[in-house]
Amino acid sequence: MKVVASLVLAASALAVSAPASAQFAKPEDAIKYRQSSMFVMSQHVGRIGAMVNGRVPFDAKVAAENADIVAVIAQLPWTAYVAGTEKGGNTKAKPEIWTEPAKFKEHNEKLIAETGKLAAAAKTGNLDTLKTAFGSVAGTCKACHDAFRN
Amino acid sequence: MKVVASLVLAASALAVSAPASAQFAKPEDAIKYRQSSMFVMSQHVGRIGAMVNGRVPFDAKVAAENADIVAVIAQLPWTAYVAGTEKGGNTKAKPEIWTEPAKFKEHNEKLIAETGKLAAAAKTGNLDTLKTAFGSVAGTCKACHDAFRN
Repeated sequence: MKVVASLVLAASALAVSAPASAQFAKPEDAIKYRQSSMFVMSQHVGRIGAMVNGRVPFDAKVAAENADIVAVIAQLPWTAYVAGTEKGGNTKAKPEIWTEPAKFKEHNEKLIAETGKLAAAAKTGNLDTLKTAFGSVAGTCKACHDAFRN
Repeated sequence: MKVVASLVLAASALAVSAPASAQFAKPEDAIKYRQSSMFVMSQHVGRIGAMVNGRVPFDAKVAAENADIVAVIAQLPWTAYVAGTEKGGNTKAKPEIWTEPAKFKEHNEKLIAETGKLAAAAKTGNLDTLKTAFGSVAGTCKACHDAFRN
């Protein structure tokens, strides 16, 4: 695959002007969107995890590529937890997402921050640095899943 | 959502060292990955399309944010069309993806190129420029779907 261009994506991508609820044609789309983005993210997290855990050889370039993707996609799911999507599809979302929005937002922002650090750590090419950052990301995933996912 | 950091993601993200087939734990994951990334991309394409088609007011910042996301995600699905995933799930993939891989790859690369141009066009803040680039992206989507999707 050719290098086409470098793309700069700021974490401000979520600060869109339109109300989040207006971004999805129907509630099912919002649920599918958050599940889809989470799944794509999980695949790339898993590829880094495989290196961190020694299941596949460490390749700094591959780690950095995957970490960049993780950091971008980590910004996406949160606008999709709109009112009216508490149930539906096979959502595992807990009601606390909507009853404790400030706490949920804190978790979202922590993931964005930690995946940003992961991308930076991966660029160092140092496996130990990557392991530390990966541990923080994994812990952030787990804390949010424990609190907000059935 | 606070601006956390700017992330640079090169289109080289797909040029990973490991064989693509080794990137997914099972065939279903590959199918789910390509469908998930396509769906997320479609949502962001749709948000630009709504502005281009006048269904929602043009907001240059929102258009640029969405175009950046599209350009990143447009790079992702292609490694997931691995051998052994021709059938399964509710895939709409046509056999031609595997029987005409060079042609399929051409379409993939065209989408990456055109979405890169879309991101650049969106940054100009000019609606007519955006419309032109969006038309090229939409045409690229359609051409590939016509040839390779049932």
